[in-house]
Amino acid sequence: MSTELIRPRHDAARTGFASDNYAGAHAEVLEAIAAANRGHVGAYGADPYTEALPELFAPLFGEGIEVYPVWNGTGANVVSLMMLTERWDAVVCTTDAHINTDECGAPERLAGLKLIAIDAPHAKLTPEALRIPAREFEDEHRARPSVLSLTQSTELGTVYTPDEVAELAEIAHGHGMAVHMDGARIANAAAALDVPVREFTRDAGVDVISFGGTKNGMLYGEAVVVLSPERVRGPLYVRKLSMQLSSKMRFVSAQLEALLRDDLWLRSGAHANAMARRLAQGVAQLPGFEVTSPVHANALFVRLPRAVADAVVEDFPFYLWDETDHDHPVARWMCSFDQTESDIDAFLAGLKRTGSAAGRGPAACGPSADDGLQR
Amino acid sequence: MSTELIRPRHDAARTGFASDNYAGAHAEVLEAIAAANRGHVGAYGADPYTEALPELFAPLFGEGIEVYPVWNGTGANVVSLMMLTERWDAVVCTTDAHINTDECGAPERLAGLKLIAIDAPHAKLTPEALRIPAREFEDEHRARPSVLSLTQSTELGTVYTPDEVAELAEIAHGHGMAVHMDGARIANAAAALDVPVREFTRDAGVDVISFGGTKNGMLYGEAVVVLSPERVRGPLYVRKLSMQLSSKMRFVSAQLEALLRDDLWLRSGAHANAMARRLAQGVAQLPGFEVTSPVHANALFVRLPRAVADAVVEDFPFYLWDETDHDHPVARWMCSFDQTESDIDAFLAGLKRTGSAAGRGPAACGPSADDGLQR
Amino acid sequence: MSTELIRPRHDAARTGFASDNYAGAHAEVLEAIAAANRGHVGAYGADPYTEALPELFAPLFGEGIEVYPVWNGTGANVVSLMMLTERWDAVVCTTDAHINTDECGAPERLAGLKLIAIDAPHAKLTPEALRIPAREFEDEHRARPSVLSLTQSTELGTVYTPDEVAELAEIAHGHGMAVHMDGARIANAAAALDVPVREFTRDAGVDVISFGGTKNGMLYGEAVVVLSPERVRGPLYVRKLSMQLSSKMRFVSAQLEALLRDDLWLRSGAHANAMARRLAQGVAQLPGFEVTSPVHANALFVRLPRAVADAVVEDFPFYLWDETDHDHPVARWMCSFDQTESDIDAFLAGLKRTGSAAGRGPAACGPSADDGLQR
Amino acid sequence: MSTELIRPRHDAARTGFASDNYAGAHAEVLEAIAAANRGHVGAYGADPYTEALPELFAPLFGEGIEVYPVWNGTGANVVSLMMLTERWDAVVCTTDAHINTDECGAPERLAGLKLIAIDAPHAKLTPEALRIPAREFEDEHRARPSVLSLTQSTELGTVYTPDEVAELAEIAHGHGMAVHMDGARIANAAAALDVPVREFTRDAGVDVISFGGTKNGMLYGEAVVVLSPERVRGPLYVRKLSMQLSSKMRFVSAQLEALLRDDLWLRSGAHANAMARRLAQGVAQLPGFEVTSPVHANALFVRLPRAVADAVVEDFPFYLWDETDHDHPVARWMCSFDQTESDIDAFLAGLKRTGSAAGRGPAACGPSADDGLQR
Repeated sequence: MSTELIRPRHDAARTGFASDNYAGAHAEVLEAIAAANRGHVGAYGADPYTEALPELFAPLFGEGIEVYPVWNGTGANVVSLMMLTERWDAVVCTTDAHINTDECGAPERLAGLKLIAIDAPHAKLTPEALRIPAREFEDEHRARPSVLSLTQSTELGTVYTPDEVAELAEIAHGHGMAVHMDGARIANAAAALDVPVREFTRDAGVDVISFGGTKNGMLYGEAVVVLSPERVRGPLYVRKLSMQLSSKMRFVSAQLEALLRDDLWLRSGAHANAMARRLAQGVAQLPGFEVTSPVHANALFVRLPRAVADAVVEDFPFYLWDETDHDHPVARWMCSFDQTESDIDAFLAGLKRTGSAAGRGPAACGPSADDGLQR
Repeated sequence: MSTELIRPRHDAARTGFASDNYAGAHAEVLEAIAAANRGHVGAYGADPYTEALPELFAPLFGEGIEVYPVWNGTGANVVSLMMLTERWDAVVCTTDAHINTDECGAPERLAGLKLIAIDAPHAKLTPEALRIPAREFEDEHRARPSVLSLTQSTELGTVYTPDEVAELAEIAHGHGMAVHMDGARIANAAAALDVPVREFTRDAGVDVISFGGTKNGMLYGEAVVVLSPERVRGPLYVRKLSMQLSSKMRFVSAQLEALLRDDLWLRSGAHANAMARRLAQGVAQLPGFEVTSPVHANALFVRLPRAVADAVVEDFPFYLWDETDHDHPVARWMCSFDQTESDIDAFLAGLKRTGSAAGRGPAACGPSADDGLQR
Repeated sequence: MSTELIRPRHDAARTGFASDNYAGAHAEVLEAIAAANRGHVGAYGADPYTEALPELFAPLFGEGIEVYPVWNGTGANVVSLMMLTERWDAVVCTTDAHINTDECGAPERLAGLKLIAIDAPHAKLTPEALRIPAREFEDEHRARPSVLSLTQSTELGTVYTPDEVAELAEIAHGHGMAVHMDGARIANAAAALDVPVREFTRDAGVDVISFGGTKNGMLYGEAVVVLSPERVRGPLYVRKLSMQLSSKMRFVSAQLEALLRDDLWLRSGAHANAMARRLAQGVAQLPGFEVTSPVHANALFVRLPRAVADAVVEDFPFYLWDETDHDHPVARWMCSFDQTESDIDAFLAGLKRTGSAAGRGPAACGPSADDGLQR
Repeated sequence: MSTELIRPRHDAARTGFASDNYAGAHAEVLEAIAAANRGHVGAYGADPYTEALPELFAPLFGEGIEVYPVWNGTGANVVSLMMLTERWDAVVCTTDAHINTDECGAPERLAGLKLIAIDAPHAKLTPEALRIPAREFEDEHRARPSVLSLTQSTELGTVYTPDEVAELAEIAHGHGMAVHMDGARIANAAAALDVPVREFTRDAGVDVISFGGTKNGMLYGEAVVVLSPERVRGPLYVRKLSMQLSSKMRFVSAQLEALLRDDLWLRSGAHANAMARRLAQGVAQLPGFEVTSPVHANALFVRLPRAVADAVVEDFPFYLWDETDHDHPVARWMCSFDQTESDIDAFLAGLKRTGSAAGRGPAACGPSADDGLQR
């Protein structure tokens, strides 16, 4: 296969900090797709790549699990929640949860679910949030809280410890609730915790995971991993009616296989985390910057002078997360599997250079990052 | 890029007649993906590949159109219909329409639409079906028929002529209805009609097209092509809330570009059609087979002895479409862009061999094709 | 209580044939409301009137049933269907079914259900309609047919015999489907069949009934009667989320009690049927009229000259059901519990007078009944 | 009409403080129903009672309004919100809002709306809650905030002043949002403010009102009053598909007429408010009770010793609103149009008696009010 004849429309050497989904795909992922190509196999999952998935995921999560490839993260979340719920149920999450803020209401609109969104420091739910009176579970006037959804790593770059997950899951199960984990960045969490992924998922009481692929180097595709099959109803129907059923599913499954081979998923997560740490360490040396959330995984949230933000965003794209303080907004810098130490260092140099200039006077007018926060 | 290290899990030399989505992807499609890989670009469509799409589609449909890449065919259909409708609307289609039979009710469940499904010979709606009394459009008790959805080529392998589309669209527009075309196999229709695609779409009054990619050699991905932007509301929101928004959209768009380059889409459609014609001509020579629908595009519907069906289905997978007459079911044979004349001839030889044997006595017991009709 | 001070805005002496919901309420129903008024009782069904309902319905349907008062017929149907289904299910009904034609798509939009509507002679499903291949129940691409919904008496004024219901229910149960009966006019059916209502419901295999009240003399209100509690999930939640939960439920329940007292419901149904029979007998004497459906209950469908229809509709309002043949449309004449023999005779006299005139020349121009068919 | 023959199933002399929907109906309301009974009128709103509504409401809200009777408060809210929104919209409200807490998720499940629920002191939104960044209105990832929903009087018994409503509405309109008022207790608010209802609704920028009837003495029924017809789409369809369309609508409309006649609605609201004030004044004399929200309308929220609550709840039913502090829960006492000064005084006497006893030792074990909070 050759790419000489096709001229890319973009600058393949450039990276930034806007999102891990600004990155492309791992070379190994493309190779896996090419290897799975040609000839006919069954559609909609009746293919040897998809059929192998439970076995391929078993080293991570153990036996008796089910794996349902889907298109994207929102799809993984909504399909997970839908198979765990009745039509009258509600889902408890944080106000920062992706399902609450970045899915255009898909859980409400497609699954008919009510979200009970709770303010949580650094986007981590605490046991207090689950102090739900018993009557809330048996009152027809209330949407019944039936799922606890945790994001791991969180939307603010923090990570739940295995014990924290276990404590929350125990309370949830005590209420009869199921536990869902939005693992769009589960690789970053696993790398950050440096424990087997099973410790903060299945062993901690998680029932269904949205196992992230796209943000960790796949072209597209995630997997709904059902750890407690007895808790779900109609997974195949739910995936299909949600329009999350891929016809040529072999290609999603082959990518997932590539991610699992030799722990590519974990190595990629660890690399992105290391880039974020390097960036955090560099920023700590610069005056006028404040890291606002603990840097557990691959994201930094940094309050900085607007002049600096405006000056660097063109060369190193990123999003402003919070502009409540207009002159000192909080930026989100997300590191990716495909960035190098020199990418980080170049950004740090840019920040240092502009920061010094900003200290001397008003910044040059840069492009606004205000055109939509697409995480 | 090398694939030597990865052993495929399937037999890459084998094809069948179960569905055009049993096929893999064009080599050019994979090349386009590789060329678009590496480096960072904007997510969710803010990339140069996606931004180029209206210009790339203009030679087909003209200026002033909008192009929204989505994941799959069901997604393309539901997103199309949702942007054309209010919450109280209905969609007129045939009982054989994919939206009516093969989307697990997604139009109803996700878009809240009512389908008014009409029996139609060979899956082609006739003007009679649109003789809708005026009061049906202004009675709050009735779901308001607001979209006519035509499949081109149809689920039964037939094709509407430009004049037929124009006549139906004129009636629909006269009722104030919009016209949607499910073009999952629009390439096969265009090749069959041998006219510019615009003649049976935009010029004939079609407002929105589900432009098929997956069944015509993409890994995944379709495009909602809006020909009448004034008729749609909220396309970006509708795509997102339907979970049909790809984050790394450059890869869908690069595939679409590959399909449009040098008319690969049309050549592939024509090739699949030619394979179907070759198969039809071969079958016409065999006794005991009856073609039940006109072979306009890449599908054959053939009534055949069950013994023959049972005997050949293992080597050449396909689905039984209609088993009402148990001993003489109707099979669907779908030809693909990646099949060769020798694939067709091998199948014909198998049919001939088994047909003769069947004539002499009961057929050997073959595997049942009855395990779900996944089109 | 006195009504002298309030002048009615309508002519209380006038009746017509447009619909049984053009009628008002039984005097006994109003008395029951007045008797239940004053003082405080628990809201949302925690009142002695509602708590008595299972006992009050037991003489009709036996022990072990559940009764859920709701607002209206569409509500009763959708609540019934929702508690019987999963999110991926479909409901089999006739194309004439109220759920298919007169609920503005509520089953699809609110319950997310797909309707599989089947043409049925005189709106009565036959066993053939239930010859559903086994694979339809296990294919994720298809909405799973899980409920058979029968209307009794039907939208065309016909009635299923107990044996007919039993045969259909047996087939449905054999598929694992539940059986729902839309009994908006169950009183008319019971009176027409002259058998205990249990014979064509619980004993025939019906699982849930929409038990009609409004069309049989209540101000408002119907009851979802669950005959097979083991088949439903979440009835209280489903009623509430469907907005069918009345706060002052004592007043719905007191009306239901009034209907059941001394078989008022059955006497009223029988009376309306008798009026329809009288009308049918009268029409049979008139030339130029054709009854198009058997008159089992309280509805007549009559093909008549448009001139006659136009001439009488102002004095005796009714709807045109089918205007395909413009000059000889089919009218629907619905008789009510509150009509008298002289009401019928006056209408017959009007028809006779106008019919004779019509025979002599073009009819005087009457108001069109074309402004919406509100059944 | 006589009620002698029907023995009530409840004690018509007893009232309580659980909810204003524990009350029955005004005598005038029943008289209006009786006066509208008998004879046939058009169904579904084609009757002279319904047609008169815009004219009857004009003295309150002015010309050019639309009035849509519906069944209940949840229905009024969801129908209002649905006609104001697109499928991708969100509604801003307080966390205490009835739409957020007491409708079992109907806005999400039936209208597909996302609620953005904001903590608000005493259930009154402040302008700060509407400091929404511009990008939130144009980002496909976010549900678009398109309606501000205010409850008047609020769920905590407080009232917005006309100026407060106007300020919030101005901000909302500035964002392009519409303003909905949940007026289930609008009569209590109007009476409390003692200004024409128009001042805090239409003149203050409210676009659509859920005008409460049931809690103010109707048997059932509310009215969606559209003050800004140019902001709504498809009101008739929305009401029907939501199953909120009454067939015998004359009876809802006649009740609304009764409420408007001689300002019965306002007098009833004022009376209930006066009862609440009397109760508040009495409680102020008792030691150990704390009123936790300002008493603007007909509700009191009172922190009291559990022993007292347990002791009086059987004779004077009410709900516990907040049991976070188990020994000192907050009770909700709701006063109704049908209560008398002696009802209030009897309750106060009960509280006083039990309070004294409680001061002397552990209270007698009373029935728990914990069995579901049905507001």
